[in-house]
Amino acid sequence: MKIAIVFGGISYEHEISIVSSIALKDVLKNDLIYIFLDEQKDFYHIPNSNMQTSTFSTKEYKKYDKLTLNKQTFSKKTFICTKKIEFDIVLNLVHGGYGEDGVLASLFDFFDIRFIGPRVEACSISINKFLTKSYSNSLGINVLDYKIYNKSKSDEINIKNYPVIIKPLKLGSSIGVSIVNKKDDLQYALDSAFEFDNDILIEPFINNIKEYNLAGCKIDDEFIFSIIEEPKKNNFLDFDKKYLDFSSTKKVSPATISKQIENQLKNNFKKIYNTIFEGSIIRCDFFVLDDTVYLNEINSIPGSMANYLFEDFNDLINRLCLNLPRQESINIRYDYISKINSNK
Amino acid sequence: MKIAIVFGGISYEHEISIVSSIALKDVLKNDLIYIFLDEQKDFYHIPNSNMQTSTFSTKEYKKYDKLTLNKQTFSKKTFICTKKIEFDIVLNLVHGGYGEDGVLASLFDFFDIRFIGPRVEACSISINKFLTKSYSNSLGINVLDYKIYNKSKSDEINIKNYPVIIKPLKLGSSIGVSIVNKKDDLQYALDSAFEFDNDILIEPFINNIKEYNLAGCKIDDEFIFSIIEEPKKNNFLDFDKKYLDFSSTKKVSPATISKQIENQLKNNFKKIYNTIFEGSIIRCDFFVLDDTVYLNEINSIPGSMANYLFEDFNDLINRLCLNLPRQESINIRYDYISKINSNK
Repeated sequence: MKIAIVFGGISYEHEISIVSSIALKDVLKNDLIYIFLDEQKDFYHIPNSNMQTSTFSTKEYKKYDKLTLNKQTFSKKTFICTKKIEFDIVLNLVHGGYGEDGVLASLFDFFDIRFIGPRVEACSISINKFLTKSYSNSLGINVLDYKIYNKSKSDEINIKNYPVIIKPLKLGSSIGVSIVNKKDDLQYALDSAFEFDNDILIEPFINNIKEYNLAGCKIDDEFIFSIIEEPKKNNFLDFDKKYLDFSSTKKVSPATISKQIENQLKNNFKKIYNTIFEGSIIRCDFFVLDDTVYLNEINSIPGSMANYLFEDFNDLINRLCLNLPRQESINIRYDYISKINSNK
Repeated sequence: MKIAIVFGGISYEHEISIVSSIALKDVLKNDLIYIFLDEQKDFYHIPNSNMQTSTFSTKEYKKYDKLTLNKQTFSKKTFICTKKIEFDIVLNLVHGGYGEDGVLASLFDFFDIRFIGPRVEACSISINKFLTKSYSNSLGINVLDYKIYNKSKSDEINIKNYPVIIKPLKLGSSIGVSIVNKKDDLQYALDSAFEFDNDILIEPFINNIKEYNLAGCKIDDEFIFSIIEEPKKNNFLDFDKKYLDFSSTKKVSPATISKQIENQLKNNFKKIYNTIFEGSIIRCDFFVLDDTVYLNEINSIPGSMANYLFEDFNDLINRLCLNLPRQESINIRYDYISKINSNK
């Protein structure tokens, strides 16, 4: 199974995607091909031996082969012909814009390229924190209270109880996120969040809340779960900390939690995943307060695919490759047009 | 303003899209170009003079120029070169799959083509009736009670109160929809719905409920509404009836409703539209029962763009063309990669 890792993308998480992709070089035993999506929305084939961060920060990647997306493949032009890039499946590793917002999923769908990654609806639900909350509510999964504000109505923001946490509505990796302990610090936090998004989400920040992360996917109607991780927090995970974590391939120890909480986390994960997230490996970040589980966020393409949380990530990827959702085929028959024409 | 109408697509609503597109030929005074997406996912440039249903049902369209999607344009290959198709903007008129599910929106976004039509999140919310309900609930908009069932769990379906209405979860145009008055008729209705979708939605069918449709869009922060239509129903609008309606360009009379209900419909429309549906003209179908408004469905690309509900549809389209949402530009700086490298 030859896997093409597509990474980069046009978002504030571009660099994280590069780091994630490099991390997987040592984790996956498959033949790998690296396809970089740069900020001009051009694809490049990066030789495996050049998969290091400097290739991108120095723009050296531009000297490698430019690729175009065609039916069932990427291809490159040579002087005499167009050459197909050979691979069996794509792994979508573009965090944030283009990867987690449904654009790449749509391109792969349109060009009949099989891929591991969230499909369009899964992207919409997970990238937009308002839709995450709506979806969870409808599934009967608890979420913290929240308010959404648009930049144009920021003068309506009126916070009664501090501390709160302020997040851009559609960004991951803690970018633009602040904890605000008192009114004096509010404006700066709002400015930081609105720098990255026209809409922000405000929710209570609960000091003693526990945080647990659980990754997984469904293969052959059976859920494969990672260990449950209790992320270390320095108040909360900021971008620098998370960023360095994304390069991680080191295994972590499972969180110490009761069987009852473990089951609740897993049951919530199943509800969230079914069936909209099929084809992807996701990480759900939960809160637990007074034995009640709350969904915090859904990461539809978690940093370095949360590989370090799985016992045998390589095996998981290979099994998932063989169990991707199939498109329904639709037979277009023109029955109704014929009926109209015969009625004329 | 030269408008390229993209129509066809791969869905059970393929034929409706053809009829919608033909209907707009007489409504829009702009220069028009017709681009057909066939079931092999190939684009064809159809001469305006050949925009009639037989061009498609006889597959005659295959003799016209095949187009490829490139940065900022569609183009065709001639013997000596590649020729750009000239237009200012795309009007996405692909109902159902590929048009209303986010795929075309993503393609246009990726290839920097300006378009009128729902963006990715708008598509996810409107095409999936579960997400429509979740979204509405979170906005404080009433919806009828409902249950969702997967084909694999159809033996769990247990209906206490008839009549109910059964709908495929993700189809429009009443395809696969049945009203079931008694238990004996249930199996046939389930089979009909599951023929089109692996998931179905069941909700109560309320005989004396009123139905009102309202279309509109936002231009320069101001909402432009259509008249409110009370669709004629023959129990409910079936596919044949709707299909013929989609070819309609005839104006209809506004529904007779109180100012209070009219305001409620418009306020609900605004909440739904803001800001996720920017760039599109949508039709919201509402129910009213005992002076309470319920959202039934959101049509993100309504049949023939609901042109017949607007006083001056041509003017609306031209104004919307000048007021489309813009992509935020993101500057990728490689700050964090530099930080990591300097820490090594």
